[in-house]
Amino acid sequence: METPQTIPVHLGPRSYTVSVGAALLETLGRTVAQVPHVRQAVIVADSAVARLYGERARASLAAAGIDARLLEFPPGESSKTAATWLSLQDGLLAGARPIDRRTVVVGLGGGVTTDLAGFAAATCLRGLAWVACPTTLLAAVDASVGGKTGVDHPAGKNLIGAFHQPSAVVIDVDTFASLPAGQLANGLAECVKHAVIREAGLLDFIDAGAGAIAACDRGLLTELVARNVAIKAAVVAADEIEAGERAHLNFGHTIGHAVETYLGYETIGHGEAVSLGMVAANHVAARRGILPAAIAARVEAVLAKLTLPVRRAGLAANVIWEIMQHDKKAREGKVRMVLARGFGKVEIVDDVKEKEVRDAVKYLGR
Amino acid sequence: METPQTIPVHLGPRSYTVSVGAALLETLGRTVAQVPHVRQAVIVADSAVARLYGERARASLAAAGIDARLLEFPPGESSKTAATWLSLQDGLLAGARPIDRRTVVVGLGGGVTTDLAGFAAATCLRGLAWVACPTTLLAAVDASVGGKTGVDHPAGKNLIGAFHQPSAVVIDVDTFASLPAGQLANGLAECVKHAVIREAGLLDFIDAGAGAIAACDRGLLTELVARNVAIKAAVVAADEIEAGERAHLNFGHTIGHAVETYLGYETIGHGEAVSLGMVAANHVAARRGILPAAIAARVEAVLAKLTLPVRRAGLAANVIWEIMQHDKKAREGKVRMVLARGFGKVEIVDDVKEKEVRDAVKYLGR
Repeated sequence: METPQTIPVHLGPRSYTVSVGAALLETLGRTVAQVPHVRQAVIVADSAVARLYGERARASLAAAGIDARLLEFPPGESSKTAATWLSLQDGLLAGARPIDRRTVVVGLGGGVTTDLAGFAAATCLRGLAWVACPTTLLAAVDASVGGKTGVDHPAGKNLIGAFHQPSAVVIDVDTFASLPAGQLANGLAECVKHAVIREAGLLDFIDAGAGAIAACDRGLLTELVARNVAIKAAVVAADEIEAGERAHLNFGHTIGHAVETYLGYETIGHGEAVSLGMVAANHVAARRGILPAAIAARVEAVLAKLTLPVRRAGLAANVIWEIMQHDKKAREGKVRMVLARGFGKVEIVDDVKEKEVRDAVKYLGR
Repeated sequence: METPQTIPVHLGPRSYTVSVGAALLETLGRTVAQVPHVRQAVIVADSAVARLYGERARASLAAAGIDARLLEFPPGESSKTAATWLSLQDGLLAGARPIDRRTVVVGLGGGVTTDLAGFAAATCLRGLAWVACPTTLLAAVDASVGGKTGVDHPAGKNLIGAFHQPSAVVIDVDTFASLPAGQLANGLAECVKHAVIREAGLLDFIDAGAGAIAACDRGLLTELVARNVAIKAAVVAADEIEAGERAHLNFGHTIGHAVETYLGYETIGHGEAVSLGMVAANHVAARRGILPAAIAARVEAVLAKLTLPVRRAGLAANVIWEIMQHDKKAREGKVRMVLARGFGKVEIVDDVKEKEVRDAVKYLGR
């Protein structure tokens, strides 16, 4: 069970491989060395992750013959801004050793870091290659695959950004053990999402393995990440720039993003918001009569077992609705949502009424 | 002669058409209306161009059924910064009417504007469609074709940016008539560059038409722009992301960029710097014995006739050399230059010695 797994992401000339396993940080250098034309690397990490893993990452690159320096920024979602992005550009462009187009950016950390590092790479010298090295379950199963990079804007999350596929993704599940309590659950919300939109069996796996996953069992985590990356990779390969099917990945994210914006990114974790968003979306679907109530209840029960929130009092439904209308996936103010009819059966609707959202938010507040 | 001309830019799924002619600003709306899924537009222009053409552009869009608002920034190369880019993002994202992915950005102005507007489009909501509407000869024959977008950084020009092809380019040669004296010559430097790297006949055309071009003859300007766009489009189509042949377009730009950085972007025009860069590059090639001295002299004579600078005293050769080593096209500190062997015969070399650059800079200072 502890053999590393590799999952190909098929995107034509932008294809790459995701490696998942224990102790994989040691192989980071070998992976970066395979990026065409690579001559040097810059590791982007927040100061907390840099302290934990920066030196090991640098040593792995050095062992592979790649000179690398570390570029740090303050930890936290509040760093996911254009200002931090610009400070990374300053660091990339003004270092003692001139960078050039054969410089590879390595994003080492959670989703904030991989999004920031990927966007810095996308926009430095009109595009540097980059390698994602996610150190959280959330980043591993979500942010690191699919090429979405960017930063937040006061008007909303991820509003500034670009599609820029990494050259490789290296996931060392051992790094998850250093996560603060609750962070693992954050990533599990995205795993539940994948189960709902594509595979009931994955929900059974998560349900049955919840205890071992919480204890950071290496084999189980490797299996969990590999299954989720495979689902996300298949969706992304079918629709790289989110013109159609990829929108299924937004299940739980329409109301979830609005809740996140409403409460502030520092107040609620992304996975927690998505958990509430999935409960709310299933409430809308169940009310419409397209989703059996038993499935909505099952999803809610698993989320609760994973210590994810399924209720939240004090959300102002009218503000949530207002925020949803400004979502970048909204079209001309029309709110789009992904609704489930059952496991692996989802549909995109754009006729969501304010009343339905109000009812769903009221349900969350019970 | 005054019929509009259209030049296709062949880039697979990112192909688009460049339209060139007189009074074409009136057709801008019809062109933008053909962008798939377009629902609204935001016109990005500096305040000077906005005053001249903003209302006509907006009216043309309105006549085509597209609601558009104007987003302004202060004129000048000093606006080509990450700060202005961010103010454009603020304007795009925080407007009264929510933008979405069906919003088209229109870059109306010179190269600073099309580079800024294109980069704002590239990075807003992970990529909005955009239409370039260059109002200077320089932007028409250079910045508007090829998808290079971006801003300057204290460490150098265009160091922050992305490749993002426009959906269409509309060039109204009448707008060139509003250029300050000297600005037309700025664009002519790039035309001479195209002649050197691809087509001797174009140099004869420029030489013979110099007077009529300076007088902004509509027919001659249309022909001039169309021929130059066709050359640039062919080069870009063969090599979209500058892996090989596209580097030929950097003829005159290695030393030229360094001169621009050295003197400051506000002190010398881009075309003026490129003119000096071409003279310097030809000096290097002539000294190497690969370029006949008569061709170098001919190019210099045409540049001088176009009122472009071919001499510049007071350049510190050691600083120019230092800047060249930090150019984003340099590789591991190795300076790359494009040298001409004759019209249409250029080669990329990476063995340029400091001595050769010193000699060329000394030649400029005679």
